[in-house]
Amino acid sequence: VEQLNVGIVGLGRIGQLHATNISHIRQFNLIACSDPFVTEFNHLKIHKECEALFNDDRIDAVLICSPSSLHSQHVLMAASNKKHIFCEKPIALNEPDIIEIMSVCEKNKVKLQVGFNRRFDKHFSLLKEKVNDCDDYLPHLIKITSRDPYPPNAEYLKQSGGIFFDMMIHDFDMLRFLSNDEVVEIYAKAWDQGEDLYESANDYAMALVQLKLKNGTLAVIENSRQSNYGYDQRIEVFSNQASFNVGNEPAHLVTTIDKNGMRKANPKEFFLARYDYAFKQQLLAFFDAIVNEKAPQVGAFDGLQAFKLAKNALQSVQSNKVIAC
Amino acid sequence: VEQLNVGIVGLGRIGQLHATNISHIRQFNLIACSDPFVTEFNHLKIHKECEALFNDDRIDAVLICSPSSLHSQHVLMAASNKKHIFCEKPIALNEPDIIEIMSVCEKNKVKLQVGFNRRFDKHFSLLKEKVNDCDDYLPHLIKITSRDPYPPNAEYLKQSGGIFFDMMIHDFDMLRFLSNDEVVEIYAKAWDQGEDLYESANDYAMALVQLKLKNGTLAVIENSRQSNYGYDQRIEVFSNQASFNVGNEPAHLVTTIDKNGMRKANPKEFFLARYDYAFKQQLLAFFDAIVNEKAPQVGAFDGLQAFKLAKNALQSVQSNKVIAC
Amino acid sequence: VEQLNVGIVGLGRIGQLHATNISHIRQFNLIACSDPFVTEFNHLKIHKECEALFNDDRIDAVLICSPSSLHSQHVLMAASNKKHIFCEKPIALNEPDIIEIMSVCEKNKVKLQVGFNRRFDKHFSLLKEKVNDCDDYLPHLIKITSRDPYPPNAEYLKQSGGIFFDMMIHDFDMLRFLSNDEVVEIYAKAWDQGEDLYESANDYAMALVQLKLKNGTLAVIENSRQSNYGYDQRIEVFSNQASFNVGNEPAHLVTTIDKNGMRKANPKEFFLARYDYAFKQQLLAFFDAIVNEKAPQVGAFDGLQAFKLAKNALQSVQSNKVIAC
Amino acid sequence: VEQLNVGIVGLGRIGQLHATNISHIRQFNLIACSDPFVTEFNHLKIHKECEALFNDDRIDAVLICSPSSLHSQHVLMAASNKKHIFCEKPIALNEPDIIEIMSVCEKNKVKLQVGFNRRFDKHFSLLKEKVNDCDDYLPHLIKITSRDPYPPNAEYLKQSGGIFFDMMIHDFDMLRFLSNDEVVEIYAKAWDQGEDLYESANDYAMALVQLKLKNGTLAVIENSRQSNYGYDQRIEVFSNQASFNVGNEPAHLVTTIDKNGMRKANPKEFFLARYDYAFKQQLLAFFDAIVNEKAPQVGAFDGLQAFKLAKNALQSVQSNKVIAC
Repeated sequence: VEQLNVGIVGLGRIGQLHATNISHIRQFNLIACSDPFVTEFNHLKIHKECEALFNDDRIDAVLICSPSSLHSQHVLMAASNKKHIFCEKPIALNEPDIIEIMSVCEKNKVKLQVGFNRRFDKHFSLLKEKVNDCDDYLPHLIKITSRDPYPPNAEYLKQSGGIFFDMMIHDFDMLRFLSNDEVVEIYAKAWDQGEDLYESANDYAMALVQLKLKNGTLAVIENSRQSNYGYDQRIEVFSNQASFNVGNEPAHLVTTIDKNGMRKANPKEFFLARYDYAFKQQLLAFFDAIVNEKAPQVGAFDGLQAFKLAKNALQSVQSNKVIAC
Repeated sequence: VEQLNVGIVGLGRIGQLHATNISHIRQFNLIACSDPFVTEFNHLKIHKECEALFNDDRIDAVLICSPSSLHSQHVLMAASNKKHIFCEKPIALNEPDIIEIMSVCEKNKVKLQVGFNRRFDKHFSLLKEKVNDCDDYLPHLIKITSRDPYPPNAEYLKQSGGIFFDMMIHDFDMLRFLSNDEVVEIYAKAWDQGEDLYESANDYAMALVQLKLKNGTLAVIENSRQSNYGYDQRIEVFSNQASFNVGNEPAHLVTTIDKNGMRKANPKEFFLARYDYAFKQQLLAFFDAIVNEKAPQVGAFDGLQAFKLAKNALQSVQSNKVIAC
Repeated sequence: VEQLNVGIVGLGRIGQLHATNISHIRQFNLIACSDPFVTEFNHLKIHKECEALFNDDRIDAVLICSPSSLHSQHVLMAASNKKHIFCEKPIALNEPDIIEIMSVCEKNKVKLQVGFNRRFDKHFSLLKEKVNDCDDYLPHLIKITSRDPYPPNAEYLKQSGGIFFDMMIHDFDMLRFLSNDEVVEIYAKAWDQGEDLYESANDYAMALVQLKLKNGTLAVIENSRQSNYGYDQRIEVFSNQASFNVGNEPAHLVTTIDKNGMRKANPKEFFLARYDYAFKQQLLAFFDAIVNEKAPQVGAFDGLQAFKLAKNALQSVQSNKVIAC
Repeated sequence: VEQLNVGIVGLGRIGQLHATNISHIRQFNLIACSDPFVTEFNHLKIHKECEALFNDDRIDAVLICSPSSLHSQHVLMAASNKKHIFCEKPIALNEPDIIEIMSVCEKNKVKLQVGFNRRFDKHFSLLKEKVNDCDDYLPHLIKITSRDPYPPNAEYLKQSGGIFFDMMIHDFDMLRFLSNDEVVEIYAKAWDQGEDLYESANDYAMALVQLKLKNGTLAVIENSRQSNYGYDQRIEVFSNQASFNVGNEPAHLVTTIDKNGMRKANPKEFFLARYDYAFKQQLLAFFDAIVNEKAPQVGAFDGLQAFKLAKNALQSVQSNKVIAC
């Protein structure tokens, strides 16, 4: 198979991002999209209803980019119609739904890949490679920093599921990816920094989470919704053989120096710029999983585990207690 | 006009690069190519003879990617057939040919853009912007470093025209681009580093060139054909108001630290990786010049001036004398 | 007063460090030292008993550098003899002793400065200055990394009081110094990394501690006794106006690059090299406090607060519970 | 011998620097100084006439820190009186004087060390070590950048001997030090940048010099008297096995980041801060040469060679010709 026919359910920001990327990837042929509000995008056929895609026999695979609350419903419909599925995170908003999804996908023999794009970042995947290369490797500490430049608007914030489900879920997945291990204990703090925006959305401006993995490794993840200086994405892994870090990609390489000091560029502004390569790579990996009948590099079980960590983190914040996972 | 039909003359390394890039740029529609040896590339129609392109009425513009010795001939044929022209550097191998080219293009009212891709690099173009932003700006010194990771093969080397015409011509153009000024004096040294490869090609492994611009600015350009550590592309501009530098893009961002020290990535390996963005941007600029009837951002006169500097540099090496330009 | 006469109680590693530094500081005249085992150091008079120093009328001030278990006893003797006191951390091994020390020093009108040398580091004191310069400044997050290159020997380790009292006490003080605030809640994890050295000393190879300050600021402190790559001392402070970090001082500035990558120096090896300047500055500050009758920049109350945090951190590790301070 | 008695001739800026450093070096005992204008410095005995030092039998060695025009006279008097000599650069203002100095020092069996302090910088001496460690090492290119933050005052400038004798002489020596080789050809440009200060002193604001060494290595040295951003001291050495660079020591390590970008410290402001360690190390090396009867690490011949390069550089600027050395 040289090319797959695909459809996209949902043409919001992330749906449009995938549509644009797919137009540059010869392995995919974008047949149609569905969105209740969008009527036109790059000369594509846009259906109002997603069923039109699920019922289209030409379509091999769908990308589920609808609002999070509709993910599980759309995934189940796609699976029943034997479409392979790429689904944005989170794949559902509760555990039973995720477990049903896993079962339905298996029964229908369709692949399900979850949109944890950062696993496909070239720096982070190289980091994992180097970390795993160490003989007798056991990291004793992993530090993950993940800070957005500015908050989403109030409306998005209210529907986002909150900082743990919307943002830190990526970092929970990254921790599992890098460590090949599972979290056994979690303690989380979060703070609205006294700003109405977060309080009224029942959300937080920042969160600081401490985790313990099964093999003893400790970890700390830190998120902010408003760094004010750009999209700060850093990871450090410490082991006895060697330690590693991945810093930020700067927006540009021009350094200016005068009597007031040396000025360098901030990190790339946001995720579109920072993870451009990763967004494309994850689609190629999806193609590879389907065509070569492999398990997707990041599947429903990964979606489930990250979801549970987000839930436990929130419970820890609310109870101010350590939660065993 | 939303799209132009183009043809490519010559499908060697650089021709194929442009063909691939064009396939991702919706402003261009690649109609056909010509190459005496290549028979198939990405399902494209490949003619043996370039005349087939020049005579094709559908074609609005051609990219001249043939061997340097054929550039002027192909450019003149294209211009006579009213095709707009993007020509790889150098546009000819002697000054009268370049002057004829300028005149024929003007007469036939076709645009000619020269392939000095580095002008379109985002870091260097931002550098120029910052440099020119300084009120009362006058740089007193410009330093350009440009080092290839490893030499071309012996056969290419013999036909390359030598380090000044093949490599440093890019840096001569960059100096003119950044300074908005012309060189009035040049002194050049070059060395084969005792290696047969260069001696037998009548070429040099490295060159170090000192220049004076009309407004007094001094400059130094350094080239190596074999850095052994990657593609080293750096620029520094010093003025009294502020100084600037552009460093290398690292191949990746993973830092490793252990008891033997800290290790970071080398610069990106070579020009394909380093100037990927610039190669695409220069084609968009070519489209813009044609469609909006602007002068190309880098035209035949720029090709002429860089060519003359390469010639003077070589003469300086051979005579060990300062050459007035 | 241009010069003070001082004595040093205890000529172990840190006592010798201060003795050497004092010999280069014209504000101090080192009269005598005491140590039960050391008989000679730089031609100085060494008493077996510390009483000889406390009874010496010429001596204005003493530096208490004896083993931690003797600190409170030596401080009390010095205060009763009207000697100003510079005391290495911790000033005592329990809170009542510290409170008695505070009272006795006040009654005898002697200054007591605690050896939290890092407050006098030029980078960290500049960091504090910049952080406090921000109008409406409120950091939401402070991250402190403090990692030793290699563990102390087994004997030292057993007497050190453990990672929280021996190492992290510096970081607890730094957090209070930078934030001008007090900790209200602490959660700590620690791990021996499966090594006998720590288990047999009832200590840990590493610790990761999360703290909440009165004004809402969150903090995380991380210690390791064995980084294997040098003395890693970094701080980050995040606020909405601006964020700041202090990186490591490299051992040297020579970068090597070849086909295997770019190599840079590790951080300076250990505290003697890294905090050389700070060790001298804290003595000058001690002189200033005495001569100009100021409160020491870091006094007994600071010693008390850091001590209590170390105690709470240990209790958190042992109970795996959040501790309110 | 554990200590040498020394005297200092000339208590200007550099003489006072050495006097202060010597007070912290136990290998030297500063007996007396001479200066026609200074009457008091750190409680030292200051003679009006330098003869008082040369005739003082207690004095083993003298530091010549008088104005450059008096160096040769003072060195000859010192040598005749059997004093070992540390002399600031340049040791004389013409070649015959230097040659006479070499002969008189040899006849009187006194050591003469020249004040090329940068050879004792820890980064540059490590650079030399690494460069020389490469088997089959032959650097093909050496780049030296040396820029003062701001110009000296007009009076100093007029007496300084000009940029080549006053500033670049250090870099000429560094080039010989790093390469273990001699210059055979030089081409120099210099520019007053249109400023009266330099024109009226018959001097230049900047200079750019290209050199060829006997073994083929090319080099470029760049000086500015007014970088406006600090004391910029960088070196790069390129060979086929490996390449090396030494960057600037930053004034501090605090990085600030906000929406306007990332700000880092400038290089250390000037030579006192940057070469503090080197100034002390060169005195220890002087002690070592005397006491252990070694040739000084940098002697009169080095002073002569650097002087000749400065002379040739100036001649090249004035003639706009390449000068064979």
